[in-house]
Amino acid sequence: MTFAVRYTAALTLDTAPTETAPPGPGEVELAPAYVGICGTDLHIFHGDMDARVSTPAVLGHEMSGRVVRVGPDVEEWQPGDAVTVMPLRWDGTCPACRSGNRHICQHLDFIGIDSPGAMQQRWTVPAATLVRLPDSLSLDRAALVEPTAVAVHDVGRAKVQDGERVVVVGGGPVGVLIALVARAAGAEVRLVELSDHRRALAENMGFTTWDPAAEDVPELVRQWTGDAGADIAFEVSGAAGGVDTAVEVLGVRGRLCLVAIHPRRREIDLHRFFWRELTLVGARLYDRSDFERAVGLVADGTVPADLLISKVVPLAEAPAAFEALETSGDVMKILVDCGNDERGASA
Amino acid sequence: MTFAVRYTAALTLDTAPTETAPPGPGEVELAPAYVGICGTDLHIFHGDMDARVSTPAVLGHEMSGRVVRVGPDVEEWQPGDAVTVMPLRWDGTCPACRSGNRHICQHLDFIGIDSPGAMQQRWTVPAATLVRLPDSLSLDRAALVEPTAVAVHDVGRAKVQDGERVVVVGGGPVGVLIALVARAAGAEVRLVELSDHRRALAENMGFTTWDPAAEDVPELVRQWTGDAGADIAFEVSGAAGGVDTAVEVLGVRGRLCLVAIHPRRREIDLHRFFWRELTLVGARLYDRSDFERAVGLVADGTVPADLLISKVVPLAEAPAAFEALETSGDVMKILVDCGNDERGASA
Repeated sequence: MTFAVRYTAALTLDTAPTETAPPGPGEVELAPAYVGICGTDLHIFHGDMDARVSTPAVLGHEMSGRVVRVGPDVEEWQPGDAVTVMPLRWDGTCPACRSGNRHICQHLDFIGIDSPGAMQQRWTVPAATLVRLPDSLSLDRAALVEPTAVAVHDVGRAKVQDGERVVVVGGGPVGVLIALVARAAGAEVRLVELSDHRRALAENMGFTTWDPAAEDVPELVRQWTGDAGADIAFEVSGAAGGVDTAVEVLGVRGRLCLVAIHPRRREIDLHRFFWRELTLVGARLYDRSDFERAVGLVADGTVPADLLISKVVPLAEAPAAFEALETSGDVMKILVDCGNDERGASA
Repeated sequence: MTFAVRYTAALTLDTAPTETAPPGPGEVELAPAYVGICGTDLHIFHGDMDARVSTPAVLGHEMSGRVVRVGPDVEEWQPGDAVTVMPLRWDGTCPACRSGNRHICQHLDFIGIDSPGAMQQRWTVPAATLVRLPDSLSLDRAALVEPTAVAVHDVGRAKVQDGERVVVVGGGPVGVLIALVARAAGAEVRLVELSDHRRALAENMGFTTWDPAAEDVPELVRQWTGDAGADIAFEVSGAAGGVDTAVEVLGVRGRLCLVAIHPRRREIDLHRFFWRELTLVGARLYDRSDFERAVGLVADGTVPADLLISKVVPLAEAPAAFEALETSGDVMKILVDCGNDERGASA
């Protein structure tokens, strides 16, 4: 008997037994080992995405695991292979796909939101979504590959160069991962974050952090940059004030990379964009090259997975973990252990 | 005796006699021939820029004219040379200048706003600001070089490529010039403008235009582009609704070039920037290469100056012309004739 965590209604998750059909042509059945809980999963849990999510819905798209069975016509994969999944299915025919931007296909199926996700003990996905993991990478750490791929994509969209000065506004998991990837690209990074807990964690990774509630961040940036302003700001807070901070810290021709989701319209100082010839760049998801680079960054320790993983909970306790996340922001990444990692967590 | 048009207080211009000192080292005295009235001049006339403008202020920065006298150490210029002025003075030492962006110097002196402008019969400027005009270009037409340089800069900032689909939101002089320069770069252009008069003028230049009050512009763009959306939108309207239209018409990875001044904060659909990975690029002023290219585009007729110049008024009637512009938007460009063009207008 295998189990899945299911979203059934706002603020309600259950665990329920599942039945698994053999994988079809081009499909692979996986045994998920660890699944990270993402901010988007929390939005779904809140009920904010009920228009998009069909219940009961199996959540989860930050995962690691092993191949169990392969369907007909699948030649590259064998049972036992360690993998993660790039959870995107595109139609290949829309204008976005035709222009080479399949990752933002106009009819994208994001697996784990638009179709069943990884928070279950068996999961069937197209073989084309698999990304191979090296043996050296433990499966709990590998659950961080997907959010790291987001950060790789964001740093690429912002075209971060060696020696540039970067302000990351928002120090949750994606913000910290962006800081790490930007630093690996040679940038000097400052992280702006309200939570004491998250600032302390980032300081442990060697970052200078600023508390926007207590400090005048634009003034600190002016001092840091000799009145030039930052080259790049990443808006990862999702807050109106975070957008303002990101705009205000930028120097002439600075680039603002918009990572966070802002469901509500935001008031923007467009005059500043004109006056300083700023650029704003939207960044969403990733492509395969981002994913492959992310595997390398997690495997080689550039991403200190042990510091980022706050807690690992068994599948049966996932509903309680979601509820706990409602009341406390003093965590970074929580993983759900699906009970399939025979070697156990090595973190 | 020479005269100048002076802004003395909100909604008040006068004409007054001026005295001219001989040009100093590195300076040149000009006899302005024609000076265009720009939207910024109208903002000053409204009193909207009193914090920046010291009264009495001589307005005008879109000009053509001839050299009258040169100061010591000026070797490149002779009396009689036909010129326009790139009205920028930078400090050369601020972070913007040091990074190669002198045109948006952090202490920029914009001549005609921050220091005396061209709407007078004698005008002394640094020789470094002069741009040579070809003999083939009549001086009235040459007064369009400065706004054309703005359009060249904007099209460059948006990186318009051959075959791209471009929507220009706002069909005043700069909007129409952007449409002309983008078309010259090989783009397919649609112009969105409320004024019947301005739309008719653009249609005369061969553009398809849309009235946003009567037509569903995003739907028209979907039909035009086969549901892909436009590659580029220029926001030249300065209106909140114009920003929304510019965002909404863009396809995946589309670029919005922000040209208009928005003194007030604007509500923006940031989610769309995220979802479609849009880019917003601020564009301000121009550099010398933009100016030189603009001279060529006006001289070779790519910019149909005769269609753009609505009216030429003598210097003494400039105050009345400003007042008339308050009450009617059914004009494109009005030039002030400073009485210095011996050959007379050839338009």
